[in-house]
Formats: sequence, C-alpha cells, structure tokens
Amino acid sequence: MGGDHGLPVTLAACLDFLKRDSLASLLLVGRESDIRSAPAFAALQASSRAHVIHAPEVVEMGDPPAVALRSKRQSSMRLAFEQVGLGHAHGAVSAGNTGALMAISRNVLKTIEGIDRPAIATFIPNRSGSSTLMLDLGANVDCTAEHLAQFGLMGSALSTAMGVLQPRVALLNVGEEVIKGNELVKQAAEQLRQMPLHFIGNVEGNDVFKGAADVVVCDGFVGNVALKTSEGVAQMLGAFLKEEFRRGLFSRLAALIASPVLRAFVKRVDHRRYNGAVLLGLRGVVVKSHGSADAYGFRHALERAAEAARHRLVQRISESLAERPEFLRPSES
Amino acid sequence: MGGDHGLPVTLAACLDFLKRDSLASLLLVGRESDIRSAPAFAALQASSRAHVIHAPEVVEMGDPPAVALRSKRQSSMRLAFEQVGLGHAHGAVSAGNTGALMAISRNVLKTIEGIDRPAIATFIPNRSGSSTLMLDLGANVDCTAEHLAQFGLMGSALSTAMGVLQPRVALLNVGEEVIKGNELVKQAAEQLRQMPLHFIGNVEGNDVFKGAADVVVCDGFVGNVALKTSEGVAQMLGAFLKEEFRRGLFSRLAALIASPVLRAFVKRVDHRRYNGAVLLGLRGVVVKSHGSADAYGFRHALERAAEAARHRLVQRISESLAERPEFLRPSES
Repeated sequence: MGGDHGLPVTLAACLDFLKRDSLASLLLVGRESDIRSAPAFAALQASSRAHVIHAPEVVEMGDPPAVALRSKRQSSMRLAFEQVGLGHAHGAVSAGNTGALMAISRNVLKTIEGIDRPAIATFIPNRSGSSTLMLDLGANVDCTAEHLAQFGLMGSALSTAMGVLQPRVALLNVGEEVIKGNELVKQAAEQLRQMPLHFIGNVEGNDVFKGAADVVVCDGFVGNVALKTSEGVAQMLGAFLKEEFRRGLFSRLAALIASPVLRAFVKRVDHRRYNGAVLLGLRGVVVKSHGSADAYGFRHALERAAEAARHRLVQRISESLAERPEFLRPSES
Repeated sequence: MGGDHGLPVTLAACLDFLKRDSLASLLLVGRESDIRSAPAFAALQASSRAHVIHAPEVVEMGDPPAVALRSKRQSSMRLAFEQVGLGHAHGAVSAGNTGALMAISRNVLKTIEGIDRPAIATFIPNRSGSSTLMLDLGANVDCTAEHLAQFGLMGSALSTAMGVLQPRVALLNVGEEVIKGNELVKQAAEQLRQMPLHFIGNVEGNDVFKGAADVVVCDGFVGNVALKTSEGVAQMLGAFLKEEFRRGLFSRLAALIASPVLRAFVKRVDHRRYNGAVLLGLRGVVVKSHGSADAYGFRHALERAAEAARHRLVQRISESLAERPEFLRPSES
C-alpha cells in the first residue's frame, strides 16, 4: 500500500472502490500498524470487506529490480503477488516501482505457457468516444516479431475481456509510401496474419487517437515513447490554454464565463480515468497504477483489476494460445 | 510547384515570402503555361524576383520513389534539385511525395562526405517558448548507432545555424529505472559522447515538449511514430474542445466571449508555423512542406529554406564532420 501520496490516498480509493462494487473485497498488503492507524481505515474495517496482510518490507522507488527481487522477500509487493498465486486474491494492484513490479510479478506468478515476456498494456482515449488498448509500453525494449505477435494475441484477449466483440488488432507503423516499416514490423505483420485474431494491418501514430483500431501493438521502446510524447503534448497544450485564460483581466473574465465548458473538457480528457496499466502474460491479474495517482485514479486501477479478473483475462489468453500451438514456443521453432 | 491545394496556394505563399524577404528571389519550377496563367503570377512577375523554369513532368503523390527517380527525368522535383546542384538556387522547397523527394534529392545532390543517410528534421514547439529540433522523422527506419550519432551532429549544426549558441543534443529514450533503452540507443549514447557536440544524455517522450533539449535524436521509426502521435493527440484535444464549446446555447455564448482567448491559444499552437522539415545530410538545402499546407504554412517552409541557406547549413555540417574524421566513414571502421 503506497504510491507517491501514501496511505490516505490509497485507502480513500479502496473505500470508494468497495462502495461502488458491492461484491468485491480487498486484501491490504503493507505495514499492518501503519494501515490500522490510518484515519481512513476505520471505515474500511467497518465494511468487513477489507483485510490486512502484514508485510514488513517495502520496495522503494529507487530500488533496482534485482535488489527488490532478491533481498526483499517480505515486501508488500511480493506478498501481494503471492496472494494472487495462492488463489487468495483474484488480482493485485500496485502503484510501486515498475521495474520491481515486472521482476517480482514474473518471479512469483510466472508467465502463461507460450508467452515469453509479459507486456504492459494501457487504455488510451480516442476520438470515437471509446478507448484504444496499446501495448507494449516499456516492459520490452528489444522485441522479436514473435513477441509482437504474442502482444497482439494478449491485447486481443484483454480487449475481448473488456467487452469488445471482435477487437481490431493493428500494428503501429510509419506511413510514408516508400517506407513500409522497419524489419521488425514487416516480420511481425506476417506473424500477426496467422494468429487467431482480427488483424487489420498497420496504423500510424495519429490513427491511434482516431479509434482506427481496438488494439495497437508495438515494441516497448516505441510504445513508451509514443505514450510519453502524447502526455507531453497534452500537458503542453493544457498549460498553454491555462496561460491564455490568465493573460489579463478580460481573459480571466472569459475563463470564469467559460468555466463550465472548460470543466467539461477537462473531465472528458481526464487521464485519471485511464489509470491502471495491465501486465499481460502472467498467470494472474496484475495492474500497475501511476505512482502519482490520486484516490480517483487509483480507484480506476482497482476497478480495472476487478474487471480483468471477472472476465477471466488469464484464461482467455491461455485459450487463445491453445488455438495456435505452433506459436506456443516461437523460440524453439 | 504544387501541393494538395495547387498553384493558387503556393504562388500566394511565394508572393508573401518575397514581400517579407527583400533580398530573396525565387525560381518557380513547374509547367510554365500553368504557372504563367495562374492569377497570382502577375504580381510575382511584377516583383521581378520570380523566374519560371519549365518542367514538363510532375511526380504524383502515388508514384513509387523508384519510378519517380528513373522514369521522370524532367519532373519539377528533379529540375528544382538540379538548380540547387548547379548553384543556381541556394535551396529547394517541395510539398510533394516524400519518398520521391528523398530518392531524387539524394540522387541529384548526393550526401555530404561522411554522412551515410540523409535524415528528416523538424522543429516542434515546446513549453519554454522556443522550439525543439527532432530527427530523424521517417527517412531511416532501420538505423545503426553510427547513424544516430550522425543525426546528432547534423541536428546540432542545423540548430546552430538557426541561432542556438551551443545546442543541447539529447537521445530519445524510455525512462523507467530498470530499462535504460534498447541496444541501439545504448550504443548510440556511447558514440554521441565522442562527437563534437554538446550531448546531454537521454530525454523521454514528454521531455521533448518541455524544452529539455534543443535537438532530440531518434531513429526514423520512433521519430515518425512520436511526431504523428503528437499530431493525433493535438487534433483529438482540439476536436474535443470545439465540441464542448458547441454543446448547447450557453457553451456557444461562452465560446463567443472567450473567442479572443481561444484565438490566441490556437495561434500559439498553430502547427503551420512549424511547417518545413529539413532534409539534412545532402549537399544542398532541401525543405519538405506538408502537402496539405496552406499559403501561410508554405511560406514558413520557404523561410526555413532561406534561413538554412543563409546560415550555411551544409558547410556547417561538413565542418563538424571534419573535426572528427574518425567518424567520417563509420561503415569502414
């Protein structure tokens, strides 16, 4: 239990989550005394749907993954994944150190048979009003075509689990006529065509936000750059808009009058609703919240985990893989 | 002479360009009869600083680069580059087919000694109020570390030519602690450290828009995705903002009152001011305009070419390379 803002935020999110989801219950993994003494805990305890599991150690944001993995055997992160592994929890959510999260979740839960590497997937808003699932976002910075094909399969399974009937899976590529992508992407397209999924071909960076596909596949380097670039542009535009509305008396007055409209706009593009990246390919549901998430954002990460578990994400991925046994072990083919 | 909107737009841009730049003159390369019969031509001719060079052929947007290169020996694109090669022009601007532009410019002008591949560089706005030069944006989708180092050197030269005293050159990378980039980026960092430029290390996608560096280097695949993703986000946010301001009577009234502020905002983020990508590494100045540019945007592309030529872009790159002869032929080392 943590995140940049500590227990007040995560516990408030837990409370709100339980209020809205009458069937869910929570295991709060962390320092028991800290959790029990937090003001928000009383209400959680009263719900009788939150239980504390004591973890004496904490993975710090600066811990190298290898250290977190080997030296902190009693970390809250590890114990939370163990609850999933033991079947005591249907999923785990953490706002902690991403590197450690990847290493420990993989060590504790193992990957699904046929998956070489887990991928990080997140939903991003698009103009059509729905959302686009994009992966990988940084777990794998050196990928093979087989990895990208596996990402497509896992992304399709997650998208299906989230209610899309036949997810359109696309490959992120560059668009000039002369350039049909780098070698990796060309090979990945071949592989994706043979996968049990609805592959619609290439999309370009701008298509992602048009809703041209339900699932967009890319290697972790490209995905991470694309996601962070998007965040950077959105932040810059937001800052410029604010500055213009603060420039002089007239602008401030205009801002006051336009405030309901501006609020509606801000709500619509609120990135907190998209908080909660899913680690795909593990034998258990693991969701990563932004470290800086507030209670509203963290609640969405909890909801994402609950949804993924209820819709049998892990089984769906296994089943998809079973349809194409020849892809199970691409490294041995 | 062309672009998606044809001669009326490009000729209007030419006229405006000449009005603002009293020392410049233009060679208009295209079908002579078309140019001379265009209504805007009279004013250009009156300036006596615009001359027509007849080109009987046109590279179409759908022409494969190889076809444009080999079969259209009298295309306006080729003839324009030949003017640069012959020293009759200091630079060429085209709104045509990017693939053909790359192939023909390279064929006609050749690359600077020591440069394996030309790169496409463009300026993008940042929060600090200045702009960031990013390259490559799609000319090279499979790069080696040496190519990225050359991009750094060329970008630094362009940035210097545009007035930055000691450009901060950074490598676009992913940021999680555990992941220090893919193999390509790790090797490129090593190379960049030894180059005669001010290398400041890695930046992440969101840093690009913060103005953390003057020059951001990446391979063409990543750069293309990052640029198009940025455009996609900006378009989506713009569309959402418009929609909110059109939702009902009150919102429309608010839009009316806020319109001077909104106009100031739109002006500030106007991508047309950033039109004009520079093809770096050729023995001549070549600038690529967006095909869809209007007169305002196309004028900026003309200005970019004039500026690059006046500040001796090609010589600057050659001089930088001469400082490090060991990098001149990385493929032979």
